[in-house]
This record gives sequence, structure tokens and C-alpha cells, in this order.
Amino acid sequence: MTRMLLVICDGLGDRPVPQLGGRTPLQAARTPTLDAMAAEGSCGQIDPIGPGIVAGSDTSHLALLGYDPYRYYSGRGPIEAMGVGLRLRGGDLALRFNFATVIPHGGELIVSDRRAGRIDSQTGPLAAALDGTVIDGVTFLVKEGTEHRGALVLRGEGLSTEISDVDPHREGGIARCRATAPQGERTAALLNAFTAQSHQVLSTHPVNLARVEAGKGAANCLLARGGGVLAPLPPLSERHHITVLGIAGVALIKGLCHWMGMEVAEVPGATGALHSDYVAKVEAALKSSHDLVVINFKAPDIAGHDGDAQAKVAAIERIDAAMGHVRSRFDGIVALTADHCTPVTTKEHSGDTVPLLMWGPGVRQDGVRCFDEIAVASGALGRLPGTALMPILLQLAGRSEKYGA
Amino acid sequence: MTRMLLVICDGLGDRPVPQLGGRTPLQAARTPTLDAMAAEGSCGQIDPIGPGIVAGSDTSHLALLGYDPYRYYSGRGPIEAMGVGLRLRGGDLALRFNFATVIPHGGELIVSDRRAGRIDSQTGPLAAALDGTVIDGVTFLVKEGTEHRGALVLRGEGLSTEISDVDPHREGGIARCRATAPQGERTAALLNAFTAQSHQVLSTHPVNLARVEAGKGAANCLLARGGGVLAPLPPLSERHHITVLGIAGVALIKGLCHWMGMEVAEVPGATGALHSDYVAKVEAALKSSHDLVVINFKAPDIAGHDGDAQAKVAAIERIDAAMGHVRSRFDGIVALTADHCTPVTTKEHSGDTVPLLMWGPGVRQDGVRCFDEIAVASGALGRLPGTALMPILLQLAGRSEKYGA
Repeated sequence: MTRMLLVICDGLGDRPVPQLGGRTPLQAARTPTLDAMAAEGSCGQIDPIGPGIVAGSDTSHLALLGYDPYRYYSGRGPIEAMGVGLRLRGGDLALRFNFATVIPHGGELIVSDRRAGRIDSQTGPLAAALDGTVIDGVTFLVKEGTEHRGALVLRGEGLSTEISDVDPHREGGIARCRATAPQGERTAALLNAFTAQSHQVLSTHPVNLARVEAGKGAANCLLARGGGVLAPLPPLSERHHITVLGIAGVALIKGLCHWMGMEVAEVPGATGALHSDYVAKVEAALKSSHDLVVINFKAPDIAGHDGDAQAKVAAIERIDAAMGHVRSRFDGIVALTADHCTPVTTKEHSGDTVPLLMWGPGVRQDGVRCFDEIAVASGALGRLPGTALMPILLQLAGRSEKYGA
Repeated sequence: MTRMLLVICDGLGDRPVPQLGGRTPLQAARTPTLDAMAAEGSCGQIDPIGPGIVAGSDTSHLALLGYDPYRYYSGRGPIEAMGVGLRLRGGDLALRFNFATVIPHGGELIVSDRRAGRIDSQTGPLAAALDGTVIDGVTFLVKEGTEHRGALVLRGEGLSTEISDVDPHREGGIARCRATAPQGERTAALLNAFTAQSHQVLSTHPVNLARVEAGKGAANCLLARGGGVLAPLPPLSERHHITVLGIAGVALIKGLCHWMGMEVAEVPGATGALHSDYVAKVEAALKSSHDLVVINFKAPDIAGHDGDAQAKVAAIERIDAAMGHVRSRFDGIVALTADHCTPVTTKEHSGDTVPLLMWGPGVRQDGVRCFDEIAVASGALGRLPGTALMPILLQLAGRSEKYGA
């Protein structure tokens, strides 16, 4: 049976960048392997959710794996929580959070740095100091993720998703949760009480005292957002009668993989950060015997959010080098695309199309010779919705059931 | 009023074929007429059901004629039964069947050739020997189709579609029907009794004794599959206020044409086999006065299922020659496409796109100069779902009602 490899380059797509002479990072990068695979296969573009819709990584990964996000998506918090290893129960309210730096002012907490100087170590002790907090009969589970990220689960009676984020999503804003409907008022009050308590506990934590001593911002508050309760998902393995392996560094994507019923690989060196070990991920895929392997490369998205064009070019060139191992040693069907664009000019996700490459035995060879946002637009695959990718991948691998006779 | 001709080249689309130097049969074939029509008209690609969905001939013909198959499709058996001239009544359970060669072993019938050496003559007397069989109050109507094919109708009380196929779909399998739910148990038992009886009756039939004498496989069993009860379909003529003629050789397509409310032509020489008389079909279309004529050319699909690249190239070149008569004498709108791909490399239907050509007065002239899977992908029609074809054809012929004012 033909194997399948789906490579999702997080935030890969981009727009013209002035400091790259008007080229996108993908146009500016040297990508001999991806260009060769484009020449040997078919290209096209994907609207992960729909034309012009700005996709999140979670909603887009759902769509690219064949799940209608409008049907199944229930907020990012539950996915993040699963990704860091928290096991959810029915009724649990899960949120993701950032460790942030706040300044108390007039009874409010003002956010001065949403990522606490991109703190990337010793968040474990900070999370542990808050884990197990109980307020008004509700238990707060706290677990650190990668860098400044983590997950928060509220376990107790009568919790509601009718709440705003605690995170104001901008520096200078106030950390405060509001109810979006009357049934969310208790949950909002609980979250505000927990946020205040997180500031009290973390401000005097030794980790933060040392950070301040060293001139770094204190990770003195927990800014929660993306609250949701997880919906059940029909597992990929049962849907398509295949075994599936997920390879990802960041918690969010690992959580998604768990949710879809994938086995999740632990690959040493695959951190989800800019300098993650891309070749190790590819080697893990090549060595596995799963019918479908899904790899997420997070680095292009990180560089995009940082507005760092050169870092994005470098990340793309390292992906290209890793894909050289696939091109020379994998004999199945490869789909390579992105979950969304993260233009370095805007530092946020955008709703532009993402490029798509299909490669492998039986894939038609179109005239595209170069893998970038513009070149793929004249490819034979045309412009497709995200949910079309899995049916196309499965049928090229000869794993689809015929509809009709 | 402008006339319309819809030419469906069954299984036309393909993938790169090594023995054709990596070209598809459509790329390898000499098609001066289709290339000229492509240059004079517009091209594009169609996903008959949806991107990556592997379509059957039945579901795809429904979609190409404007019917949502997810709403109307009810299994292939009833369509096949209509195609061979059996008139269905409410509650009838209809199946298609193959004449097959079986070997009795341990109380079971083992399938040694699912097509009885592709028997293509004298199946009429074999079917007649079983037609009218009554078991437990249920009457079995049996009618031969083209080559090894035929249709079986069960008429009686309490029949159910909750059954598996009798056909194991592979040589070496056991011919046996199983209930897929408790209410299917009686129907499964009836079909198993009939299958056993078909073996008893056909094994000693003079046609088979002569085949065995001549060293050919005996058509000594009837392998049924695709059971269903027909759903009513709003007729094309009423939907669009047009007269419609269907021209096809094989029973399945004729049955579909009847179901959609088309008049069905009987064209001498149009057999649906590889060497069917293509020109006779085109002449019947040119001579008719119907507003819409639908032609099915079955040969590319047969060659694809046989894995015979040269036969597929030859079939395409004969279609091209027949289309020469259309190009020189038809002054209406022509749509030429396929119901699905049948790659010679896989010998099964695939979910790749099929090419589309629109030609005639008023059709825009795009830059495509060559009619093949890759060239059409850059055509002005883009990538369309199957159900988009009829609205496009009707409006080009000036036969659509305006939506709005």
C-alpha cells in the first residue's frame, strides 16, 4: 500500500516584503528540493478555511486533515491543554495562557509585555506554584508549554464558555475577563480571582526575583484566552482505515494530533522553536511504518510573528534541506502546504492562499517549476478548500472507496 | 434555439503512464479535432463529485446532468435493471450481476473468474433459463446486458437492501450474501438460494457445455451486487423545458438516461464495447432534433480497466475522428468531458480531475491549444464541480432563466 506524508509548514505563506526586494520569503529562499518536487508533481493553492478567511493553526489543521472546523472546533484552550499532557474530563473548561508581565495600577493589572520577554526556561516551577489552586470549589490545573505558553483547566460545577479572554491581546491593556452572557458571570469572576492570585503568587516567586535581578521582565501573571470545552472527533484511523503518526514540537499541534486520534511521536530535538531539528522529524517519518505521517514545521510562523524576514528565509531553506531526505528516500505520496500565512510585514496570520505541492507516483506533472506563492497559482491543482486535501491525498495513495459503481 | 451536445468519454482521464513516456493516453493520442476545438473554445477541469472523491459512472453521470448524487443516488442495481429493459415496480429490489465461473468446494461456491472469460455472446439463453424463478414466493427476473453483465430483480414481499453483495469482488472469494442488519436476513437467504440454483441450472446448460468443449470457462453462476430500490428523479425535460436524447451502448448508462427522463436511442453498432461504432452514435446525434443529446463513449473506461494504454490511445483517437463530424456539421454548443478517470496504471477509477472542453457559438476562446489533462488546467473555465456543467451548458445555449431582474 502506498504511504502518505503530509508536511504542514506553519505560517509559510507570505506577502511581498520590501527588504526582500518585493519578493516573499518563499520566493527569496533557495529551495532546490521543493522546486524539483514542484517540477516533478502538481501544484496549486489552498484556502485553508475559505477564501479570505484568516485561519488559526488549530482550525486550519482540522480542515487540512479533513474535518469541517465549523462543525468540530471548540476553541484553542482544550487543544493546547491536551498538547501539554493535561487529560480533560467532560465539563472541564480549558484555556491556553501566556506568562506575561503586568503592572498593578488603580486596582487593575496592566499588561506591559504579553510574553514576559519571551521567557523560555523555568516556567515549570512557575506553573507548579499555581497548579491545584482551588477557588470557590473550582480547581485550577496549570501546566507550562513551550516558551511563554501554557494551558489552564478549570474543573468544577457550572462552568461556562460565555466569557471573554483575560488576555487584552495588546500591551497596555487590562487583564480582565468579562461574561459574554449572564451564564458566564461566575466563570468570569473565578478567572479574575485566579488571575489576581497568579500575580500575587508569581511576583514573589524565586524564578521571578532572579529574572528581575538579571534585568529581565518578571513572568508575574498568567493571561488566559481561548476557553472551550472539547468536542469528540471521529478518529482519522477509523474514518480512513489507516494508521496515523503526528510529528510536531509545539503543544497546540500535538494536542490536535491527539484529538484526531493520531499516535504522537516524541522526537528528540523537535522543539517547535526556530532551531528545531527538522531532519530529526523527517527521519522519524521515514523510519515509521504508519500509513500517514503528518509533520508540522513551526519555524516559519515564529519568524513571521517576529517580523523577521531573514529568519523566515532561513527556516524555509532548512525545511528544503530536510525535504531532500524525503525526495531521495520516500516512495509514497507527499503533500506539502501551510496552515495559513504569517506575513512578516503584518506579524499576524493573514487570509491569503497558501501554496500546495503534491508529489509521488501517479501524480500528474504540471508546468510549475518553482515552489512559491505565485508560481503555484498556475498549477494544475487550481484553488482548493482545505478540506479537499485529505480526499486528494487518499485517492492518490489508492486508499479511497469509490462512491457509486 | 441553440442545440446542445454533451459528450461523456467514460473513464477518459488518466495519470502519467511509463510505457507512454510519462504521458497520459490523452497526451499520447493524436487528437487533431479535439485540439482544434480546444483552441476554438474554452477548457477547464471537473471534479465530478468533489475534489479527490472517486466517482462511479452512475454518481458522476447524475452530477454531470445536474442532479446532486448525495440526494438522489440509490445504488447501481436499479439503474442497470432499467438499462436492460426491465421495468421496475415499487418495492422491487434490483441488482446487477456478472456471469461468472465458480468451482464448488466444501459446500461453497468459489469464484475462479468473475467475468467467465469475458463471455460476450449467448448470454441471452443463459439468462432466460433463470428468468422467472420463484423461491419462497419471491420471483426472480433475470435479463442479460452487454458482455458478461446483466440485471436481476427480486419481486415479492418484505425485501430489504440491508444485504452485502453476493460477488466477493475478487477471484478466489466465496459467492455468498450476508445480511448487514437483521431485516436483511431473509433477502440474503433468498439470494443465496438463487445463487446456488443458478449454478445448478447453468452448469448443465447447452451453452456452457459447448463452452467447456471449446476450452472456455463456463458461465456457471450469477454473481449479484449493488442492490437497491430506485428513487424518483425529476425529469430533465421538465426541469429545463427541453427534449433530451441519450445515446449509449452499455446498460448502466441507458438505465441512467431512462431514469433522468431522456428518450434513449437504439443505434445499430453502438455496443458500448471497445469497437463500438462511434461515428454511428455521432450521426444519430446530428440527425436528431432534440434540444440536448447526451452521448456516452464507454471504450476509454474499458481500456483503463484492462490496463491497456495502447487500447486507450486508440479509443481516444477514434473518438477524435468521430468528433470531426461534430466540428464540421454541428452548430450548437458542445461540452466534452469524462465521468471519471480510469488510469491504466491502477485499472480502477481514480479521484483525479477530468478534462472539460466547451465549444460553439459564443463560447469564449482561451489560450488552451491542446486537449489533455494538464493543458486544460490553465483554461478559462478553471476547476468546477460536476453539477456546474449543466447550468453552464444551458446558459451558453440561451436556455437559462435569469435569477433576479
